[in-house]
Amino acid sequence: MAWPRIARSSLIQPGRTITSYIRKTSTVGDGAPAGDCYSTPIRNFTATTNLMQHCRLGMINQTSFGSRGIRVAPQYQFPSAADRILEDSDSENENVRLPGLEATGPNEKSRVVVLGTGWAACRLLKGLDTNIYDAVCISPRNHMVFTPLLASTCVGTLEFRSVAEPVTQIQSALATSPNSYFYLASCTGIDVEKHEVICEAVSKDGQTNEPYQFKVSYDKLVIATGAEPVTFNIKGVKENAFFLREVTHAQEIRRKILLNLMLAENPGLPEEERKRLLHCVVIGGGPTGVEFSGELSDFIQRDVHERFSHVKDDVKVTLIEANEILSSFDVGLREYATRHLTKNGVQLMRGIVKEVHDKKIVLNDGTELPYGLLVWSTGVGPSQLVKSFDVPKSPGGRIGVDEWLRVPSVDDVYALGDCAGFLEQTGKPVLPALAQVAERQGKFLVELINRIGKENGGKAFHSRGMPMGEPFVYKHLGSMASVGRFKALVDLRESKDAKGISHAGFISWLIWRSAYLTRVVSWRNRIYVVVNWATTMVFGRDNSRIG
Amino acid sequence: MAWPRIARSSLIQPGRTITSYIRKTSTVGDGAPAGDCYSTPIRNFTATTNLMQHCRLGMINQTSFGSRGIRVAPQYQFPSAADRILEDSDSENENVRLPGLEATGPNEKSRVVVLGTGWAACRLLKGLDTNIYDAVCISPRNHMVFTPLLASTCVGTLEFRSVAEPVTQIQSALATSPNSYFYLASCTGIDVEKHEVICEAVSKDGQTNEPYQFKVSYDKLVIATGAEPVTFNIKGVKENAFFLREVTHAQEIRRKILLNLMLAENPGLPEEERKRLLHCVVIGGGPTGVEFSGELSDFIQRDVHERFSHVKDDVKVTLIEANEILSSFDVGLREYATRHLTKNGVQLMRGIVKEVHDKKIVLNDGTELPYGLLVWSTGVGPSQLVKSFDVPKSPGGRIGVDEWLRVPSVDDVYALGDCAGFLEQTGKPVLPALAQVAERQGKFLVELINRIGKENGGKAFHSRGMPMGEPFVYKHLGSMASVGRFKALVDLRESKDAKGISHAGFISWLIWRSAYLTRVVSWRNRIYVVVNWATTMVFGRDNSRIG
Repeated sequence: MAWPRIARSSLIQPGRTITSYIRKTSTVGDGAPAGDCYSTPIRNFTATTNLMQHCRLGMINQTSFGSRGIRVAPQYQFPSAADRILEDSDSENENVRLPGLEATGPNEKSRVVVLGTGWAACRLLKGLDTNIYDAVCISPRNHMVFTPLLASTCVGTLEFRSVAEPVTQIQSALATSPNSYFYLASCTGIDVEKHEVICEAVSKDGQTNEPYQFKVSYDKLVIATGAEPVTFNIKGVKENAFFLREVTHAQEIRRKILLNLMLAENPGLPEEERKRLLHCVVIGGGPTGVEFSGELSDFIQRDVHERFSHVKDDVKVTLIEANEILSSFDVGLREYATRHLTKNGVQLMRGIVKEVHDKKIVLNDGTELPYGLLVWSTGVGPSQLVKSFDVPKSPGGRIGVDEWLRVPSVDDVYALGDCAGFLEQTGKPVLPALAQVAERQGKFLVELINRIGKENGGKAFHSRGMPMGEPFVYKHLGSMASVGRFKALVDLRESKDAKGISHAGFISWLIWRSAYLTRVVSWRNRIYVVVNWATTMVFGRDNSRIG
Repeated sequence: MAWPRIARSSLIQPGRTITSYIRKTSTVGDGAPAGDCYSTPIRNFTATTNLMQHCRLGMINQTSFGSRGIRVAPQYQFPSAADRILEDSDSENENVRLPGLEATGPNEKSRVVVLGTGWAACRLLKGLDTNIYDAVCISPRNHMVFTPLLASTCVGTLEFRSVAEPVTQIQSALATSPNSYFYLASCTGIDVEKHEVICEAVSKDGQTNEPYQFKVSYDKLVIATGAEPVTFNIKGVKENAFFLREVTHAQEIRRKILLNLMLAENPGLPEEERKRLLHCVVIGGGPTGVEFSGELSDFIQRDVHERFSHVKDDVKVTLIEANEILSSFDVGLREYATRHLTKNGVQLMRGIVKEVHDKKIVLNDGTELPYGLLVWSTGVGPSQLVKSFDVPKSPGGRIGVDEWLRVPSVDDVYALGDCAGFLEQTGKPVLPALAQVAERQGKFLVELINRIGKENGGKAFHSRGMPMGEPFVYKHLGSMASVGRFKALVDLRESKDAKGISHAGFISWLIWRSAYLTRVVSWRNRIYVVVNWATTMVFGRDNSRIG
């Protein structure tokens, strides 16, 4: 849940007219950007569908930003400063002066601002030509998570830091270049007209009890803030279930599993309570849910049997899916996964969750399942930040983009990864929320932005009318998923209905491990993944419950 | 802070006569245990100093425990069960029936209950003869912390899990033997007369929002619950400072350092605020404070300069000590440490802290020091649990023990490590709170207990009058401390005033590393320590801020 607070902000004053951070403004929007910024087919639909919205944050001061520099806030604790300024000019909402990075001057490098540190953002940052651009990355998380291996960390097959890559290692300019920065902050709004991003710094452990706000002017803005787990508004999910998107989620799950295993040993516990504590329920039979169930069953068979032998016979895993597990995989692989998981003690169940209580879930058919651990992995949907953007959306509510990953109707704004989707007018389907999609888009876009920079289009508004070249085309390379001890699925078909190679078993498991090992970003983590795998094989998993 | 909640319990009912868990009882205490349980010199002072206190928990049911077995609580949530029973027998406070492990039967193995998972407890558990004894270990932490290397984890030289050893790996019987257990729980009271320990299970992440209480009967009880950091009741220390005793403390410190480094990069921050964020203050110039300062200065020189280069010049470390740093070390080594730390940018300061605020500390002489991180390592003192025990104390308020580490006047109770100290009457000094003391005591005591078991003294009260053999004698092997990059101190003198070898520099650093590496408990962690050191050397420290 990387972006929980993005749409809220202390800037909103009760009784004022501003109802949303990003809003349409009729005072601007003179049509200029739409008039000549598209030299490609997208131009037509932009004009015809009247997408000429301009987003801006309400209360920003209208002073001009001619020179670059860091402006100092009158007070560190921004809210009081904001209050004071608002009182001074009560009739004018646009008068708050935020400190921050001003617009770049004509003799300075152009500035690319990237929101997010996921696959798309990091691939883009990695490839950015720092001779042309300064980079500013803004995210409440200072590392990229190697998501395909995240499920393995929940039970200790891998360690948490083996799947986390600091973004300053991916793009060292962020740490060392004089005008490039990484900011540990959340984006709370974007003023596309003034080319500014409004941010709120992360404070104590994710709590913004001292919100410090600042703005960053951009020449090019890349939105890659990802998505959020969907809960279908089912009651009790957010309060009681664990998601599996961040390293912190994996840490929480690991702590909970170990806690429940130990609590279940407490003397005198009634049998049904012990069984409840030891019942792990996974909702959602996609790759994440299946891989996590597989890891869990392996952990139980190997480590729990050895190290929690008093309770080993009561540990159960149930995987609940409304339809079919691994629906995007070849039917043969699906059957293999079903057989393998069942053989290893994972109970597969068809069902739809009606509500979640703190110790049980209730299915639509009335079945009640007591649980000790509930992991929710039913896919992702648009984040609050994305929802709050008043821009055309793709099917599914993502930020709508054209074939070059541009947000139409506004200058110099791009969106990619899980937060973006092709607009219906492009005639292209919205791509699945996969690491390989995000990474490929990052690679495409950074090449585009580097080329624009080389052709002197790096500054704000300077790429208007430039030929964009070949549009982004996604070619699916296939899917992989491990299903537990020494077994995995590899599906190399290009799409669900295409023909192609698919394989399940030990060889696939070797391919799965080697393929991901080569994809791990840094040598440091590659070494750690190998060492983790080796020590898990030899010594078993570590079961210290830390924190 | 392993034992924060030990003296509290939901068992205490308002309006009842019980004011303390562990109390003297005049209804028992007929003098029997003291009469003939000491065949050694301790017998005399025990009798003459009238140490015949008997500790017991007030409300335990007086039913006899003839047969072993696990009793099931009427309800899982204990408080309501307790309420009901109390209502049923309102006039009788002693009627609460707790589930738990009953006393062992004559044909069963004797049970050794160990409180704690520190150096003393783990060394004892490791050596326990599981052919004679069943072991039960009770602690709110399921792992031992390799404390000499803990300071290195705060900045990422080592990873957290490299210094944590699960107790079930140290003594596998706890996990696998049918009647041996590890309970993730806090001890809340001891009934020495009935030979029972009262426990409260750890619940969600250290919060006992569903306190589950149980009791464990023992044949031999070993108290090794450690000590707590002392704050000298200085205002604001507990609220604002970090201690450095547990892996979780190291995690918090690492998160805070990285947070402050990143927040300091935020644009527009006033200079004094940036400097405050980047000022790390360490209070206490003992080995922990010095080693942490050394690690920090190394981290700053190497990693901060490379990866946080925008703020690198403002990072400062101040080490404040009221007297001399490393006062137990040879004077030449002290001078070396002072020179080396100063050379590496650590500001050494004499001073006494008067009070601590959230952003500054105030010294006795009125000096105010703004800080971003405050680490408090001024030594340890008795924990709340130890304070609540109504038994004779050693100088310094520890549980008083005789030369065989027995708690005089009560049968079958031993105390060792940081929570125990020789009674004044033994004529021996209280030993320092060091890992090597605790470990040596653990080794001594487990050999004693094993011998008692072999000579059929394993059952409760059965070791009365047995000859104890040689008493525990501590011989100091020397001290070591690292003071930063490639430099350490080795002081092999037996005491502060003795003569002997001492050395400082690179060779000492090699000795320091090799000595601790051989002491790391498991091969798994030995591998990880080496891999961590190697990757830190090659790639630098990981600066992902997780959690």
